[in-house]
Amino acid sequence: MSSQHVTNMRAEIAEQPAALRATISALLPRAPEAGELASGTRHVLLIARGTSDNAAVYGSYLIQVHAGRLATLASPSVATAYRSRVDLSGVLAVALSQSGQTEEIVETLAWARDCGAATLAITNGAASPLAEAAEVAFVTQAGTERAVPATKTFTTQLAALAVLAIGLGAALDPGELRGVPDEVEGMLAVPQQDLDPIVTELAGDRGVVVSGRGLVYAAALELALKLKEACYLHAMGLSYADLLHGPIAVVDARTPAILLAADSGPALDGTVELAQRVAGAGARAYGIGGGDRLAAACTRALPGPRLPEWLAPMGLIVPGQLLTEELSRRLGLDPDHPRGLSKITQTA
Amino acid sequence: MSSQHVTNMRAEIAEQPAALRATISALLPRAPEAGELASGTRHVLLIARGTSDNAAVYGSYLIQVHAGRLATLASPSVATAYRSRVDLSGVLAVALSQSGQTEEIVETLAWARDCGAATLAITNGAASPLAEAAEVAFVTQAGTERAVPATKTFTTQLAALAVLAIGLGAALDPGELRGVPDEVEGMLAVPQQDLDPIVTELAGDRGVVVSGRGLVYAAALELALKLKEACYLHAMGLSYADLLHGPIAVVDARTPAILLAADSGPALDGTVELAQRVAGAGARAYGIGGGDRLAAACTRALPGPRLPEWLAPMGLIVPGQLLTEELSRRLGLDPDHPRGLSKITQTA
Repeated sequence: MSSQHVTNMRAEIAEQPAALRATISALLPRAPEAGELASGTRHVLLIARGTSDNAAVYGSYLIQVHAGRLATLASPSVATAYRSRVDLSGVLAVALSQSGQTEEIVETLAWARDCGAATLAITNGAASPLAEAAEVAFVTQAGTERAVPATKTFTTQLAALAVLAIGLGAALDPGELRGVPDEVEGMLAVPQQDLDPIVTELAGDRGVVVSGRGLVYAAALELALKLKEACYLHAMGLSYADLLHGPIAVVDARTPAILLAADSGPALDGTVELAQRVAGAGARAYGIGGGDRLAAACTRALPGPRLPEWLAPMGLIVPGQLLTEELSRRLGLDPDHPRGLSKITQTA
Repeated sequence: MSSQHVTNMRAEIAEQPAALRATISALLPRAPEAGELASGTRHVLLIARGTSDNAAVYGSYLIQVHAGRLATLASPSVATAYRSRVDLSGVLAVALSQSGQTEEIVETLAWARDCGAATLAITNGAASPLAEAAEVAFVTQAGTERAVPATKTFTTQLAALAVLAIGLGAALDPGELRGVPDEVEGMLAVPQQDLDPIVTELAGDRGVVVSGRGLVYAAALELALKLKEACYLHAMGLSYADLLHGPIAVVDARTPAILLAADSGPALDGTVELAQRVAGAGARAYGIGGGDRLAAACTRALPGPRLPEWLAPMGLIVPGQLLTEELSRRLGLDPDHPRGLSKITQTA
């Protein structure tokens, strides 16, 4: 960063190991509370917007793949715009909001409770309206976040969702979750050699496709949102399947793809094939994670975390955050203060 | 279109009134079958990809807003990539695929049945594997669709979902549904004055944001997908709320917004305000529907259907289809055969 001041976004990216450590320590002992709250329910309904919605996507895959429960995303406007009555007996409603102050989310969680759901909040706002509206509140320990693009509040939301999945009975090792902060710290300590050339190349593009499959899809969505927010890039976050259902047509010499994958798991093969297809179409393919196989299939690649697939999104987003922050500055923008955005978004 | 031949896409757009008429006639008498199938279930799980996924979004809002049931979207890779076992008792699984041959969707519906769900298919393929895999098949009557970008198969899927909502007990007037084909026919008969200038302006853009709220959100997603498929535009389909949570930053002098709304309903006010905000930021706002109020707030506007909000998406997509087809030709592309795409997408 040479003579430039360190942006809040860059500082907060670096605060993630500590934020994750504090969050996991505070919440892991409370996993059984989620299990008790969920007894008698069969379906998890996740309520969120923006970055928190991307975290919710991770939660939906994690709970379905590892806890054997249906977990899907709510449409808040059913509650807030239409004020419809929906039968939510047998449902655990989980609302996510970093501030805990977004009225639409608070209102939707209250609606879910009125419709018969059990309610849990995941928020960084300990005394926030959202924490107060829920029967159980998992408060993340991210500290104050000053940059508008969320970073540490996102990764700590993922950690809270991992605790929730464990509480819901997922056969996952809490010890592996406890290892995440060290792994993220290790990633931040090593300079990413390809970061600078990727930033240079992306600085000439107006659009990019960001893709990942299954558990990693959430990290792809989140990276696309960061690039839209802080770099004004036309960044499309797409699942592997949805990319093949149409939008693959937009990938070309001026529109690269950024592909994310864990080092293992059933999504890796398809992501490697997708990288080969993108490169074969004459477009640049940038890899994040996916081990040597994805790196070999891509034009350039950033190493991902050495974490099992279920935890990989917490590490995979980190090179994407660094890329976003550096590209934003390279474009002469201020990553901390994107135009048109404020820290708490009210959409009611 | 002067001396150019009529593309398949343009011809199929014009076939929609007949396709809708045949579909509604065939399916409306069968609405009670859906009600019987759904007895004992509380939650509708929609399974789809691509254009069918956009139709599913309409179904999820319609069923939640008007039939009082939770209705959310599945993540097919939970079934196909992870092969997870999820408790789906009390769930009606509804799979949508125009061909009925997409293996991922057939496989996910079979998985849902094995996990305890009741199963219904919505497909244009009468003897397709999807129709055969479901307990009840609602077969749309769109006829053969030759252009790769789906048009009449999309609108007939919406009609089938409207029948499903009625079968699930929604207090909606089937007579209004029967009136849709005539209204779409009327829209197609009147030239849209602003279409040509909008095409001219969009031909110089690389990106566009497409937005709508609530029931109309599905039509916005579908228009964005059409523009990606047939015009290679970086078209982002975003809900009203998600647009305000970050991506509003990308709207600028080179990135217009296309905003869709019904002439009535709780989403209209917010869409008019969004148009004012986009125009106030120095960007072009193009309206589709939303009556005089949305047109007045926009730079240019295309009239929408005179339909109640619950049916408006079937008409609102039509000016978007015409826009896509004309823009694709203007850009020197072939709307019938986008690069990288084939009619049946296999993603398994």
